[in-house]
Amino acid sequence: MTSGTGDTDVRPESLGQWRDYGESTLPVPLAAALAAFAEHGYHGTSVREIAARANLSVPGLYHHYPSKQSLLQGLLERTMTDLLHRSEVAIAEAGDRPVDQFDAVVESLLRFHMYRREQAFVGSTEIRSLDDGYKPTYIGHRDRQQHMVDEIVFAGVEAGDFATPYPKDAARAVATMCVGVSTWFKLDGELGADELIARNLELARALVGYRADGAV
Amino acid sequence: MTSGTGDTDVRPESLGQWRDYGESTLPVPLAAALAAFAEHGYHGTSVREIAARANLSVPGLYHHYPSKQSLLQGLLERTMTDLLHRSEVAIAEAGDRPVDQFDAVVESLLRFHMYRREQAFVGSTEIRSLDDGYKPTYIGHRDRQQHMVDEIVFAGVEAGDFATPYPKDAARAVATMCVGVSTWFKLDGELGADELIARNLELARALVGYRADGAV
Repeated sequence: MTSGTGDTDVRPESLGQWRDYGESTLPVPLAAALAAFAEHGYHGTSVREIAARANLSVPGLYHHYPSKQSLLQGLLERTMTDLLHRSEVAIAEAGDRPVDQFDAVVESLLRFHMYRREQAFVGSTEIRSLDDGYKPTYIGHRDRQQHMVDEIVFAGVEAGDFATPYPKDAARAVATMCVGVSTWFKLDGELGADELIARNLELARALVGYRADGAV
Repeated sequence: MTSGTGDTDVRPESLGQWRDYGESTLPVPLAAALAAFAEHGYHGTSVREIAARANLSVPGLYHHYPSKQSLLQGLLERTMTDLLHRSEVAIAEAGDRPVDQFDAVVESLLRFHMYRREQAFVGSTEIRSLDDGYKPTYIGHRDRQQHMVDEIVFAGVEAGDFATPYPKDAARAVATMCVGVSTWFKLDGELGADELIARNLELARALVGYRADGAV
């Protein structure tokens, strides 16, 4: 076994898979809903439009997703589950040192928001459109994402690796920076994803006051 | 005269006014459009709904704003003009040193995104809904905002005040952090606006590698 930590299993054959983003693996109806919501917003989209994009009849669509709301919830639930799972695996694979866990969670958040830009956009803009029954679940997912970063930054300060006097604010700024990548990243941009990740990782370390010569 | 720089006049009697945010001064129809767009999105909002919120008849509303698109454009144009003007004045009042200009533009961006959260939200989510005729103007405003930060960071590196090896990426991260405040700031939160500004200013300085002992 590798040096995994926490509850998440690390299997050698899957090491680093949290970095892999191919084409989206969303079910067809959710992919159609994503495209429509990204273009016109939830309230500006009809079930008829989603069915047409999915090449389904409206009753055929309703068979799987009984309402527009269930499409939005299905989409956001998958988005957050994917993001959280990748980040948990990344942290588990990084081992026990807070600095390594920090690099891992930052890279995971950056990659997700580079390769799943539309999902990130709809996730951040349509919280307002979620039914009250599901909204707390979604906000719980988002809090858990922030909490992962918080815990690692606190541990890094405790270990003497991070010098920031404001761990909570720094952790929020780190997450904000990573999430914000979805607003400007272009796959065909001047700098490739890996170079941008390396630079933004340096910036994230600056935010927490990373000391290369800190205690280990 | 005070130590203004650049093209923007600094009048002693108005010093620091860029920090003042009272109630929004939007015209009634634009305030109504803002509330509706923030709640349901542009495509999910009807002119009838905006008229009702503004206590106007539909023809009465059309007299001032001939279309829903003109309401969105009027709203976003005022939003960006206000943001850019405040930031330009803040920079001009700060004098000639890049570090002082940096603090000023960061504080201005932070304040705006604390006190004009709804406008910031609609601005960032409804670019997709702007007609092609106006969209380049809006994107030009946003580029100008980023350019202000870029120029100051470049000048700070040149002057030896900022040590970041990635000025352009750092400047983008600074702007992203400031804009992101609109996604979590609460006026009635645990920490007041001034304390949060002080902390985020420290974080912004960390992003550019500010050296308190740097050349002046």
